[in-house]
Amino acid sequence: MLLPMSPVDSMFLLAESREHPMHVGSLQLFQPPDGMDALDIRSMLDDAIADDEVAPLFQKRARRSIMSLGQWGWETDQEFDLEHHVRRNALPQPGRILELLALCSRLHSSLLDRHRPLWEMHLIEGLNDGRYAMYMKVHHALVDGVSALRMLSRMLSEDPDLRDMPAPWAPCAPTVRAEATGAGGGPLRGLLDTAGETAGLLPVLVRTISRTLNEQTGTMSFSAPKSMLNVPITGARRFAAQSWPMERVRQVGKAAEATVNDVVLAMCSGALRAYMLSLDALPDSPLIAMVPVSLHAEEGGSADGGGNAVGVVMCNLGTHHGDPAQRLETIHASMAEGKESLRGMTPLQIMAMSALALSPLLLAPALGLNSMLRPPFNLVISNVPGPRKPMYWNGARLDGLYPLSIPLDGQALNITCTSYSNEIAFGLTGCRRTVPHLQRLLGGLDAELAALEQAVGVG
Amino acid sequence: MLLPMSPVDSMFLLAESREHPMHVGSLQLFQPPDGMDALDIRSMLDDAIADDEVAPLFQKRARRSIMSLGQWGWETDQEFDLEHHVRRNALPQPGRILELLALCSRLHSSLLDRHRPLWEMHLIEGLNDGRYAMYMKVHHALVDGVSALRMLSRMLSEDPDLRDMPAPWAPCAPTVRAEATGAGGGPLRGLLDTAGETAGLLPVLVRTISRTLNEQTGTMSFSAPKSMLNVPITGARRFAAQSWPMERVRQVGKAAEATVNDVVLAMCSGALRAYMLSLDALPDSPLIAMVPVSLHAEEGGSADGGGNAVGVVMCNLGTHHGDPAQRLETIHASMAEGKESLRGMTPLQIMAMSALALSPLLLAPALGLNSMLRPPFNLVISNVPGPRKPMYWNGARLDGLYPLSIPLDGQALNITCTSYSNEIAFGLTGCRRTVPHLQRLLGGLDAELAALEQAVGVG
Repeated sequence: MLLPMSPVDSMFLLAESREHPMHVGSLQLFQPPDGMDALDIRSMLDDAIADDEVAPLFQKRARRSIMSLGQWGWETDQEFDLEHHVRRNALPQPGRILELLALCSRLHSSLLDRHRPLWEMHLIEGLNDGRYAMYMKVHHALVDGVSALRMLSRMLSEDPDLRDMPAPWAPCAPTVRAEATGAGGGPLRGLLDTAGETAGLLPVLVRTISRTLNEQTGTMSFSAPKSMLNVPITGARRFAAQSWPMERVRQVGKAAEATVNDVVLAMCSGALRAYMLSLDALPDSPLIAMVPVSLHAEEGGSADGGGNAVGVVMCNLGTHHGDPAQRLETIHASMAEGKESLRGMTPLQIMAMSALALSPLLLAPALGLNSMLRPPFNLVISNVPGPRKPMYWNGARLDGLYPLSIPLDGQALNITCTSYSNEIAFGLTGCRRTVPHLQRLLGGLDAELAALEQAVGVG
Repeated sequence: MLLPMSPVDSMFLLAESREHPMHVGSLQLFQPPDGMDALDIRSMLDDAIADDEVAPLFQKRARRSIMSLGQWGWETDQEFDLEHHVRRNALPQPGRILELLALCSRLHSSLLDRHRPLWEMHLIEGLNDGRYAMYMKVHHALVDGVSALRMLSRMLSEDPDLRDMPAPWAPCAPTVRAEATGAGGGPLRGLLDTAGETAGLLPVLVRTISRTLNEQTGTMSFSAPKSMLNVPITGARRFAAQSWPMERVRQVGKAAEATVNDVVLAMCSGALRAYMLSLDALPDSPLIAMVPVSLHAEEGGSADGGGNAVGVVMCNLGTHHGDPAQRLETIHASMAEGKESLRGMTPLQIMAMSALALSPLLLAPALGLNSMLRPPFNLVISNVPGPRKPMYWNGARLDGLYPLSIPLDGQALNITCTSYSNEIAFGLTGCRRTVPHLQRLLGGLDAELAALEQAVGVG
């Protein structure tokens, strides 16, 4: 049976090409419990593979046919083949983080097989620090970043002594499921409900377009400058990632009366300014970031069945200012204004608005409109909250959690941040050719955090 | 500057899609010399990467533009990035051939980046038998299998004591180049020559079509049965490979007055019969194999600059016969007839004939004609001669050489054989979904060789 897919979700299939894979990823590092090593974690995962139990969401594949009038829908893959989806990898020597990031860059560059459920889980051994890594890749049509993290944390536990936990792709254990259901009616609403809710999206979208053009709300951007990031891209990716203590970010925010997210954006702003200055490529007017705002917290929405529910704010990054404090101030004001204009809308209107802001971006590759004169914004910066406490899988501590996202034609760099426990991780995913020396941005982020601390008088 | 591409070569770009990557591959196993281990081979390759010397052929990328009226052509990649092309991999434990074949299946499934020169070389460490592996992937538009093997053997040496040899992707050392030039005017003819020679192909093709329909030569097939191999395929691949002593194959051929190639085809025939019988899927009429015949030996052609120069014979595999000897006899007669009808043609006519036989196959995915009523043939079986003597790279002995080829919509399995030293290797590349239990065919090949030995009274 073919279940309908929401228009927003199917956009991610329509817009995909060999140069623009539309999957998100996450890299997870696990510390083996005392008395075990990395290969013991692999043995547990091998056992889970042998069990061959797979959650319904991970058995869904996308299909369209004449019967569905060419519309994309979801159906269960009757020839599901777990070994195609869960793959064993190893790092070449010396097995440093450098080799791990190179492997993830490559794994993130290749397309998912559309004949099968749109995900892959890569088990990675051979880290020289004794940890074990997993890279998971999920099509954006199946889940957005927030849903992916939510699924991930449901598979983990705060209890380091819990054992016999299911694999990441397995159906939830009964205890965990009960707990999630207990949290309210929202989180476990089925696929059909979701489809019903979003079926009316298109008319709303049209209404929102006309209202937006009349009212010019702060969620829309009409003034992003051209930049080196806003050019056609190639299929290969480069990935860089690093974490900083959340407490340092929080202290800066507190002293400057800004949010953690404002400080995260200010770190990106400073790093981008330095990077572009070094390449003699900084635009005169400030870069504009599209900042997705999750709607999950307020409405529940389709969290359990996957699906996308994200609004966006256009943020002035203030990259034309030489002073870190002034950049942070510009960002804070811009985010406050953008969120204010979202406040009066229903979640559905916010989704429609986001689809509007996203649509040229998503539809351009599908329509071949690669030479747009002005980008709607310069890059996407997301900040996705992850688990707040240390999490474990069968005693192995989740030690790091790094997101990989989607660069696009005209959007060669994506920055996605994830908070976890007491750290915040920055994952930078760029076109390998268009964004040279991507790693230098990590140094820029570090320098900017220090500069902000000095500017606001902490640290 | 954009250099023209031959129509046959550009067909491989036009026909490519995410379900039908059009690259060939080869897996090579190297035995380290005494006193060295596999990681020493990697160190030598690392040094070669650092040298950053790349042969012109490997710097060519395919491009088409409005300037070239939409025709594909070749140009030098001005931003060539060796680290994108040469990649370090490692096998997960326990590092058996099983893990190696699984890795190659996956590497062979993903598309090459069309913005860059169409090749990748994967260095693979972690084999538990102490050997070092390399998997190379080259787009069929750049080189055919014969040219790839020729390039490979030019990079190797028969001298186990030779050192300071260039990397596989590096320009040939002066001594090697002189030797190749000395072999006659043919092998080193440039790209422009090749393009000139094939520019007249299309009119010849049209003439050949009409002649073929009138004369019904043995190179064309109009009677292949429908089979489980002739269905639409998916993007993921499964690869299996094994070698047998060439002497066993040769003895069978000698006793039956058949060629080595006839015996190779008979092994495939018996294995396919047993495999399809076990799945209750053997057609009543005999399977027809398309058998490419290389034109390099006679004409030189475009061997050095890459390019494709292959004729084809349609071979009746006699899979309806229960008796191995009778299958071999049918194959021998069919191949002799097919080769006879190629004999009266010029190389260009043979190429045109081959393009004719290939074109429905290659153009079907591009045109979306996936539901052809009868396949032109059931599968492609190639036998590509490799080096006859043991070959070495900087003292490391090439210990095994396995080809990976191209399954297509309607052609879910490809069998390519390579002779090397005193062995013949069979490489089976299949659609992961359409050809289940591909490994069983290896057992079938082994059983059929034994059955043939018994039938003709040798071994």
